[in-house]
Amino acid sequence: MIIATTAAEVRRQVRAWQRAGLTVGLVPTMGYLHEGHASLIDCAKRECDRVVASVFVNPTQFGPGEDLEAYPRDFEHDCALLSEHGCDMVFHPAVEEMYPDGGIVTYVELHNDMPKQLCGVTRPIHFRGVCTVVSKLFNIASPDKAFFGQKDAQQLAIIRRMARDMSYGIEIIGCPIVRDADGLAKSSRNTYLSPEERKAALVLSRAVRLGEKMVAEGETRAAVVLNAMQTLIEGEPLALIDYVSAVSLDTLMPVTEMKSGVLTAMAVYIGRTRLIDNFIIR
Amino acid sequence: MIIATTAAEVRRQVRAWQRAGLTVGLVPTMGYLHEGHASLIDCAKRECDRVVASVFVNPTQFGPGEDLEAYPRDFEHDCALLSEHGCDMVFHPAVEEMYPDGGIVTYVELHNDMPKQLCGVTRPIHFRGVCTVVSKLFNIASPDKAFFGQKDAQQLAIIRRMARDMSYGIEIIGCPIVRDADGLAKSSRNTYLSPEERKAALVLSRAVRLGEKMVAEGETRAAVVLNAMQTLIEGEPLALIDYVSAVSLDTLMPVTEMKSGVLTAMAVYIGRTRLIDNFIIR
Repeated sequence: MIIATTAAEVRRQVRAWQRAGLTVGLVPTMGYLHEGHASLIDCAKRECDRVVASVFVNPTQFGPGEDLEAYPRDFEHDCALLSEHGCDMVFHPAVEEMYPDGGIVTYVELHNDMPKQLCGVTRPIHFRGVCTVVSKLFNIASPDKAFFGQKDAQQLAIIRRMARDMSYGIEIIGCPIVRDADGLAKSSRNTYLSPEERKAALVLSRAVRLGEKMVAEGETRAAVVLNAMQTLIEGEPLALIDYVSAVSLDTLMPVTEMKSGVLTAMAVYIGRTRLIDNFIIR
Repeated sequence: MIIATTAAEVRRQVRAWQRAGLTVGLVPTMGYLHEGHASLIDCAKRECDRVVASVFVNPTQFGPGEDLEAYPRDFEHDCALLSEHGCDMVFHPAVEEMYPDGGIVTYVELHNDMPKQLCGVTRPIHFRGVCTVVSKLFNIASPDKAFFGQKDAQQLAIIRRMARDMSYGIEIIGCPIVRDADGLAKSSRNTYLSPEERKAALVLSRAVRLGEKMVAEGETRAAVVLNAMQTLIEGEPLALIDYVSAVSLDTLMPVTEMKSGVLTAMAVYIGRTRLIDNFIIR
């Protein structure tokens, strides 16, 4: 596996592959990789001839007071996992490589309500940072396809829209949530949880399963499903709800009816750790 | 010369060229081409193996009350000129190809003062539209180099910054202003001028020559040079100054001293036609 630290190295290698007629998949990550990321690499390997992963904790998507400094990092472990899953190149830039000369002034941003819904209420600059860094990674790696986890459902919807609006011609592929055996959605932030909090965090996946079950049993009123999920979460003393919402998967605007194309998403603080989970009605 | 109307056609052809090891130059234009554009094609031909020109009157860079509808168009003439100068492909999309489904919501924008200076005072959304459409063209054509006229000096400075900030890895090349024999800078908007206005419009290039001469003769005070240029322009009854400014070529912020790296730029209404011109101290 090639380890690249500069955009120029990535560009050179990807061009060489593309000149040889090979397709390239990109898996953008913030590192501290887990089986969720591994599943993205596996999916990219199936879909593309060569796979590039990026490992970069992107400062512009963290707001003031968020966990930029605390965000867990372990590049050696990341390389081992990527290599094991057949990743061909990892791009691991320093902050100065992505934001040279004291930073950038250009941002890519959706000017509709999509970045203001759900996580956007408490993280107002988050998706501007995400769109900008993902655009930069697209411009560096020129992939044929790019792979994102469905766990970050709002991010995926926004990147789909950004890629279409900006004529990228890159296929955006969402991959299913990967969970621990007990149901907790894999997240790099799970490492913040104490053993007691780790148990309490199961309330998210239990709420997801409850919502899915109610819909499967025929409940179509979003308010009824959301209420039941909220009540379940509120029963956990260590949990504090940020939001539990049912929205259109395309527009992220609230819906009243549970039907195909609806994303039911939540953010819940477990102690000081903010976790997210969701399910989609197909 | 290939005439492409869809992004997919351009992408396919450029990939084929790049797979064959050929370099690609992009010349974005709004059409109604003149010798200024021809010089960009010539420059691109010298620098790249294949040249793609785009002809697209981009609605998102026109403000309310500006000349979007009136902007002159003559695609047959454009094709003849492009073909004559050895352009390999012209991309001539419909508005719906660039802005499908009722438009886009994603924009690329500089968040510093560069888009607010000079033309940005009276055209507040102009450079957001320019950056967005140029990004889209970059994403479609993936050129190695892109060519812009120095006449639109603020646009060139902003695109340089955008391309660097967004990690495009595309070399941005500025080409000198091309003038009519009597000095008037070539512009598609010159077609708006009546014969009388055409004569009055020479006041712009006369002001440029006066400024250049004063600097060549040793005047270093920006205020003195700008004053002399303004006085000259104000002597023309059909001319109304929008701005005459001396700014840093990199930051577009006003300067007081005329020295290397200073852009002296102006926008002047001749009747209802807004024209621009400039000179740079090298």
